Amino acid sequence: MQRRSNATVFMKCCTKERRRKLLDEFFRPSSITLIGASESPGKVGTVVLENIIKSGYGGKIYPVNPSHKEVQGLGCYPSITDLPETPALAIIIVPAKNVEQVLEECAHKGIKGVVIITAGFKESGQEGYRREKRLYAIVKQNGMRVLGPNCLGIADTNTPFNATFANRAPMRGKVAFMSQSGALCTAVLGWSEENSLGFSEFISLGNKMDLNESDFLEALESDGNTNVIAAYLEGVVNGERFLEVTRRVSRTKPVIVFKAGVTQAGARAVSSHTGTLAGSESAYTAAFKKCGAVRADTIKDLFMMARGFANQPPPKGGRVAVVTNAGGPGIITSDALERGGLTLAQFKEETAQELRNALPKAASAYNPVDVLGDAGPDRYKVAIQTIIKDPGIDALLVILTPQAITKPEDVATAIVESTQGIDMTLLSIFMGGPDVNKAEEIFNEADIPNFRFPEEAVGTLRCMKAYNDFLMRPRDTRVRFQVDKERVRQVIRKMRDEHRKELVEVEAQQILLAYGLPVAKTMLATNLEEGIKAGREIGYPVVAKIASPQILHKTDVGGVAVGINNSDELISAYEKITDNARRMVPDADIWGILIQEMLPESRELIIGMNRDAQFGPLLLVGLGGVYVEVLKDVSLRLAPIGEEEAREMLHELKSYWLLQGARGERPADIDSVIEAMLRVSQLVTDFPDINELDINPLRVMDDTQGCLAADARIILEE
Amino acid sequence: MQRRSNATVFMKCCTKERRRKLLDEFFRPSSITLIGASESPGKVGTVVLENIIKSGYGGKIYPVNPSHKEVQGLGCYPSITDLPETPALAIIIVPAKNVEQVLEECAHKGIKGVVIITAGFKESGQEGYRREKRLYAIVKQNGMRVLGPNCLGIADTNTPFNATFANRAPMRGKVAFMSQSGALCTAVLGWSEENSLGFSEFISLGNKMDLNESDFLEALESDGNTNVIAAYLEGVVNGERFLEVTRRVSRTKPVIVFKAGVTQAGARAVSSHTGTLAGSESAYTAAFKKCGAVRADTIKDLFMMARGFANQPPPKGGRVAVVTNAGGPGIITSDALERGGLTLAQFKEETAQELRNALPKAASAYNPVDVLGDAGPDRYKVAIQTIIKDPGIDALLVILTPQAITKPEDVATAIVESTQGIDMTLLSIFMGGPDVNKAEEIFNEADIPNFRFPEEAVGTLRCMKAYNDFLMRPRDTRVRFQVDKERVRQVIRKMRDEHRKELVEVEAQQILLAYGLPVAKTMLATNLEEGIKAGREIGYPVVAKIASPQILHKTDVGGVAVGINNSDELISAYEKITDNARRMVPDADIWGILIQEMLPESRELIIGMNRDAQFGPLLLVGLGGVYVEVLKDVSLRLAPIGEEEAREMLHELKSYWLLQGARGERPADIDSVIEAMLRVSQLVTDFPDINELDINPLRVMDDTQGCLAADARIILEE
Repeated sequence: MQRRSNATVFMKCCTKERRRKLLDEFFRPSSITLIGASESPGKVGTVVLENIIKSGYGGKIYPVNPSHKEVQGLGCYPSITDLPETPALAIIIVPAKNVEQVLEECAHKGIKGVVIITAGFKESGQEGYRREKRLYAIVKQNGMRVLGPNCLGIADTNTPFNATFANRAPMRGKVAFMSQSGALCTAVLGWSEENSLGFSEFISLGNKMDLNESDFLEALESDGNTNVIAAYLEGVVNGERFLEVTRRVSRTKPVIVFKAGVTQAGARAVSSHTGTLAGSESAYTAAFKKCGAVRADTIKDLFMMARGFANQPPPKGGRVAVVTNAGGPGIITSDALERGGLTLAQFKEETAQELRNALPKAASAYNPVDVLGDAGPDRYKVAIQTIIKDPGIDALLVILTPQAITKPEDVATAIVESTQGIDMTLLSIFMGGPDVNKAEEIFNEADIPNFRFPEEAVGTLRCMKAYNDFLMRPRDTRVRFQVDKERVRQVIRKMRDEHRKELVEVEAQQILLAYGLPVAKTMLATNLEEGIKAGREIGYPVVAKIASPQILHKTDVGGVAVGINNSDELISAYEKITDNARRMVPDADIWGILIQEMLPESRELIIGMNRDAQFGPLLLVGLGGVYVEVLKDVSLRLAPIGEEEAREMLHELKSYWLLQGARGERPADIDSVIEAMLRVSQLVTDFPDINELDINPLRVMDDTQGCLAADARIILEE
Repeated sequence: MQRRSNATVFMKCCTKERRRKLLDEFFRPSSITLIGASESPGKVGTVVLENIIKSGYGGKIYPVNPSHKEVQGLGCYPSITDLPETPALAIIIVPAKNVEQVLEECAHKGIKGVVIITAGFKESGQEGYRREKRLYAIVKQNGMRVLGPNCLGIADTNTPFNATFANRAPMRGKVAFMSQSGALCTAVLGWSEENSLGFSEFISLGNKMDLNESDFLEALESDGNTNVIAAYLEGVVNGERFLEVTRRVSRTKPVIVFKAGVTQAGARAVSSHTGTLAGSESAYTAAFKKCGAVRADTIKDLFMMARGFANQPPPKGGRVAVVTNAGGPGIITSDALERGGLTLAQFKEETAQELRNALPKAASAYNPVDVLGDAGPDRYKVAIQTIIKDPGIDALLVILTPQAITKPEDVATAIVESTQGIDMTLLSIFMGGPDVNKAEEIFNEADIPNFRFPEEAVGTLRCMKAYNDFLMRPRDTRVRFQVDKERVRQVIRKMRDEHRKELVEVEAQQILLAYGLPVAKTMLATNLEEGIKAGREIGYPVVAKIASPQILHKTDVGGVAVGINNSDELISAYEKITDNARRMVPDADIWGILIQEMLPESRELIIGMNRDAQFGPLLLVGLGGVYVEVLKDVSLRLAPIGEEEAREMLHELKSYWLLQGARGERPADIDSVIEAMLRVSQLVTDFPDINELDINPLRVMDDTQGCLAADARIILEE
């Protein structure tokens, strides 16, 4: 399995090529058949056919309906079998109970691309679920590709064709939109019309029986008409594939995702700290970070951002210049920039001087540049021309509020003229209502997205900057440490044999040691004598902890004693702990007492992993100890991670400050923490059996002194 | 000063009455003079006169301009002196250098209400600043009230009159809007037209030379045409008055504020933890909380919220029912509700049963209620009628996405009809573009605010709920403890005599003790002998700390030793600490060593105060120790606070969980913390001299064991 044969590689290529080609037929079908075509008002079959005709589709259209000779002026066929050729794409709108038969007929006719608009499948209970399963069997058997069922349809504005039953057609543009909610599609079409957002492809994913988000992402990667991909998703079908595809596509064009169903999802009960802190919501966040997908927080943001990305390059940095004809909106913009982690650019002295010379005395030559309320096109022009010569600027925001004597459209024209070919991101914020409509049209023509509110422009810019950061991120070099995999396999095998899934501390320690993780010196004493011997060997002071497969929260049952200074104290601790455990958990199988070296006072972190059903191992690092669940100062990533990512995770912690050496303390050994994170990453990637892992606390010593896992829990998959 | 004489009370009433009456003249002037009236196109004097005439103003209009006999068809007067009567309101638009003279003439004529639109005053540098000062002198001398200068003007849609130079007139409605940015006013007018937001008053505050936000808030309290007050503010003129007025007005009608200049403000350098954590941004947040003002995070939110408040009652609780014709938007809404701290209402079993009976099989009878994509008016109607009978619901959100066969306007009519007189908050979310315009008009007529995006409706609902919480909040009973004020006065007097403003720990402790705050047992030892005596009296183990007015961060100079177990250890600690301090801060005036009882391990909080220039003493409570600045787990309020507020502050902490007794620990003595907070509140309210105060850490013992200030810093005002 280490090396792929040439044949396999070849096969893979073919599959991929075929997959792409099939999708081509969804975007650019040479002919379309519509099964269930109609002309009765209000029927879906009527609306779809109307839409295809109205869209100006140039290929052949074959309506199929046994009860008509003609529909909407086109010759109609009684069945698919009767069609004179094999159409490239079939749209199915017949009642749910007939879809199976129609699909069979499509297969028989050799049709490979099918859109099933009909509802009444998986989404509608047991019977529909079974129906959909039968459909899928037909699809697989015949090498077909199917969009839907239970969807609004699909449209491509360049072919052009519109095979949806929406009451509006998408306007032409550069955004490919896919949505898991058909209803949202219709709302989006109306909204986009009012907000000048154009689409290249418009895809309603429906039940995602066969084709899903990853298929379309893959197909859109090479679609020359698409600049940016926007998606409304409630979940992804295959986490791993989504990650792989999005990661690749994101390098070419931005992928913006609104993920719904965010808050309910985290409900799954988990037993580890990491699990509690993570939840599946975090897995999506980590996944998006990993693959460079830009996340939209609201549906509106999704389209605001799409408009920004579709028309302007992302900024190369966070330094923003602002030109405004009013102080208030300038302040609002500055606030929003600072909140969004962007900065007001600091002009070179020459820039400020030139602005002072060119603008009236009362104007502000500092950023934000206030050209005053009576500014006409010329004043905007001179300000912009001066500013864009300054090399210290990555983005320019131009604000206008309509004053009594302002002509917004003239200013817009001046802005368009003076920003031709500039090397920065340009967004306009012409505020107000109908007064700026004409100006907005001028901006649209010039591919400058206009926003009615400063916060919306800044929010978009912030995400464009984040995308640029992703593009600039150095490819992570993955380190692989020499480890003892066999040792881990043995421990897991033993667990399986004993039908246990929660490892006790000593077992967890064995696994960590096998992967080179530093572990506090520990010995298991099965009787008092062994305990005394262990104390001597480890060296006092020591800590004693109960060792029992039934007791995972040792402190809660009085199963821990710290600061044991000699064998006398050890003896009494041994007895007390054993007593407590027996009393509190009478059925516990007590293996003895763990004697552990007492670690010096040090900073406490947690390193953990919780395996997400969709995206796999979700790594966590955070402030450890009792604070972990209270303060939730954690950072998450999907494993495997590289050194850069590990460092980034630590940087994201508020408590990073503590590690750097706050208040005159020495800095902590941060490099040792990073190595520990990488080793954990390697461990959980190598062993999918490990479902949850907590190293809490990880005691981090001063710089060069390393770190030590003081306690560890590992839980295997069921 | 304790008792007011009857005369004073009478005078106060008169002043207030007069103040209100004067403002009446701004909203409902019986006659208006316009100094600087013109008819030359593009001049401000032309636009304002046009606007007044066009607004349908019914009173007399007196244009004043020495170079015209007639302007815009009205007889024009050469000067104010020549007017046949004393107009109720004067609008000044003459050049800045002439305003002073014109204002004098107004005063001479007996005019009391003046709007100065002219710019070129405080906002434009030194010369303008002096000009404005001279204007203010005239105003005060003559008992006038002035809006402006440097403003867009004022409009009232009920009188009606529009004395602004905006190119649009405000539509009539129930929202009073005031803005510190004139430019924003013009943008808002355009935007409000597209979004059906109507205004009662429209006020551009300008430089706030005389009349400010608090004056207008006060006047609007009793304005019958105003349901809700919305304000764009960059700051407030008098924090204390703003608090007092807003607190009162908020009880009658919601006050929504967008505060700009948020992020730059926190730049002031401060030396205490509390100061660093607070910043003036926090003072505004605390002030808004205290007085019930609803805070808008974005300019758009301000108007979204105004629309919600103007038309619907706030919800009495957080239980929300959702009716939708599409799954996706239902999920988006549920996510937004959960994120906003609201809950999806749980229906009674009868409600669910009734819904099941009334709706198609594929519909969802649970919240969100999915009436399916083909739902017409009747299905919405039956669902709503069933739901509103359920007593467990505080608000209802009705969602529609335009489907092929949906008639949004018919559904809107059905919703209006079936919700007459219901006792809950009703917001509609008809999504999309032009398709729902007509429906939106129907909703507007019926005072149901419609939102195009679920998140916007939920955001508004969340704030309406927060306002209701404010209305329901029990009036706080203020406890006053018996304290030794004289002792505090002595300490402060001594500090003043010695020209010191930073108290050393013992001095701070004296103040805390005088206010009954529990302080760790501490003695100042000025020599080694006294130190040994102190150790014996306090009882070992003890802590030793350097005592010097120059050394406030004792740990940083090696000025602290902990865990001193006997007099030998004390001797060496004494010498080492003194040595360290001498070496690190050679000029320090060393008073000796502080010997303090060593406190048991316990939870650490911080209680602090930082005096805000605008709003006064800002109290802070938070997680103490080294974590305080890193994790910023703090809660802030303006003093004085009552017991309820103190408890609320603790509840807001993430680390409250630790105080309640996490992981099987005993709960902390929370009541003792609350008492300490109240005592600090009383102290900083009684002594405005105290500028900053930190009790950090406050050691909190287990329940009933109390808490102890282990370290305290107090800094006096300059």
